[in-house]
Amino acid sequence: MILAFIGTAGSGKTTLTAEFGKYLSENGYRVAYVNLDTGVKRLPYTPNLDVREKVTAWSLMDEGLGPNGAIVKSYDILAEYTGEYAEKIRELEKESDYVLIDTPGQMETFLFHEFGVELMEAFPDALGVYLFSPEVLRKPSDFCFAVFFGLMIDLRLGITTVPALNKVDTVKDLGGIRKYLDDIDYLTARLKLEPSTQGLLAYKLCSALPELAPPTRVLYLSAKTGEGFEDLETVAYEHYCTCGDLT
Amino acid sequence: MILAFIGTAGSGKTTLTAEFGKYLSENGYRVAYVNLDTGVKRLPYTPNLDVREKVTAWSLMDEGLGPNGAIVKSYDILAEYTGEYAEKIRELEKESDYVLIDTPGQMETFLFHEFGVELMEAFPDALGVYLFSPEVLRKPSDFCFAVFFGLMIDLRLGITTVPALNKVDTVKDLGGIRKYLDDIDYLTARLKLEPSTQGLLAYKLCSALPELAPPTRVLYLSAKTGEGFEDLETVAYEHYCTCGDLT
Repeated sequence: MILAFIGTAGSGKTTLTAEFGKYLSENGYRVAYVNLDTGVKRLPYTPNLDVREKVTAWSLMDEGLGPNGAIVKSYDILAEYTGEYAEKIRELEKESDYVLIDTPGQMETFLFHEFGVELMEAFPDALGVYLFSPEVLRKPSDFCFAVFFGLMIDLRLGITTVPALNKVDTVKDLGGIRKYLDDIDYLTARLKLEPSTQGLLAYKLCSALPELAPPTRVLYLSAKTGEGFEDLETVAYEHYCTCGDLT
Repeated sequence: MILAFIGTAGSGKTTLTAEFGKYLSENGYRVAYVNLDTGVKRLPYTPNLDVREKVTAWSLMDEGLGPNGAIVKSYDILAEYTGEYAEKIRELEKESDYVLIDTPGQMETFLFHEFGVELMEAFPDALGVYLFSPEVLRKPSDFCFAVFFGLMIDLRLGITTVPALNKVDTVKDLGGIRKYLDDIDYLTARLKLEPSTQGLLAYKLCSALPELAPPTRVLYLSAKTGEGFEDLETVAYEHYCTCGDLT
């Protein structure tokens, strides 16, 4: 089965890929790692497939591009090899129990670039794990944003995506956060009290959520402590089971 | 009035900021420019306020960070000066008819980082212009994604955001695109024919759109030809008029 870790730069994709892979290996699974980040310097895992073999953001910066331009350009170059990468990932899928895909450092180069979109079109059964950091959650409407963003990834890439709060080891009041994320009705009721137009939009979006998508289970993960790894394994198993793709 | 151009790297924010600013100046308005991109090398306008005076992504890369890490770190540093920047923008607003904000190269460093979120909290009346490129629109569900993404920005930053297809000069069949973007009912009907789960999600999201947000008018812009500049000016005017903030 294929798991794609998706999230903004700094959301912890790479560390989680390494640690969850280690966990799976220790539990007897065959794990393959795919790095899609052209801008990463060091990886804490040994990739079976690594786009940096083709191009790095650095080499393009050496040619005079700024960091933003270099990152985009690197995926322009990779886009010509999307079919080749899809084929290689398919081979890894055959040889492994899990293929863990560590997506580009900047989430938008995956969601908005044809490379990411076309690559994932080849794997409609993959499970997306949308990682967001606790810092994103500053006010009630942000909880709505986080859950909805998972749905946006689903819409864009065509893969079932589960939102996952990462780095929970850094959170003081996880109970307070879970009260919102685990119970969309509670969150909706809370948002109803917000007087701002932002609060009103969040209220409407959250109210519509149950009709828009099947009940969303949020995961709580920590690469540091291993918290939530069993849950993630279960969710991945259930996803593939339901699809009838469990081999 | 404050206009913030928001979009992924390569969506044309900087060029549009320059050209729309020029257009406004030529029409007699006093225009101020704000650059929030720590990674841009050359600007086609002279900024009245420029975050690169404080920090650049390069200087951090020289210290050993990769491009993704350097970009994030630069906004970590800027986050300590959010109040100062808000104050300076407020001053520019007093002296000018238009303040054009050219947001970070990578959209996610604006939407997910406290610097962007807290800065825009200081300007709830600003108008966001969400720029997306024609390449994003590959299949019907992508049109839904584009419109919904504008709503996500609204939800996150708390500012009214109008979606704008940029670089329309590069589009061959603009009529075909407008048929979807100008008529959400037509798009919804089209999505109903999609057999995939992705299509179903897009259909549900588009169906819900009229209840979630006021009718969304999409802009069609080109920095190259000046197409849509009058429309953008009108939308900005109407936005401030409705808010009662037109001075």
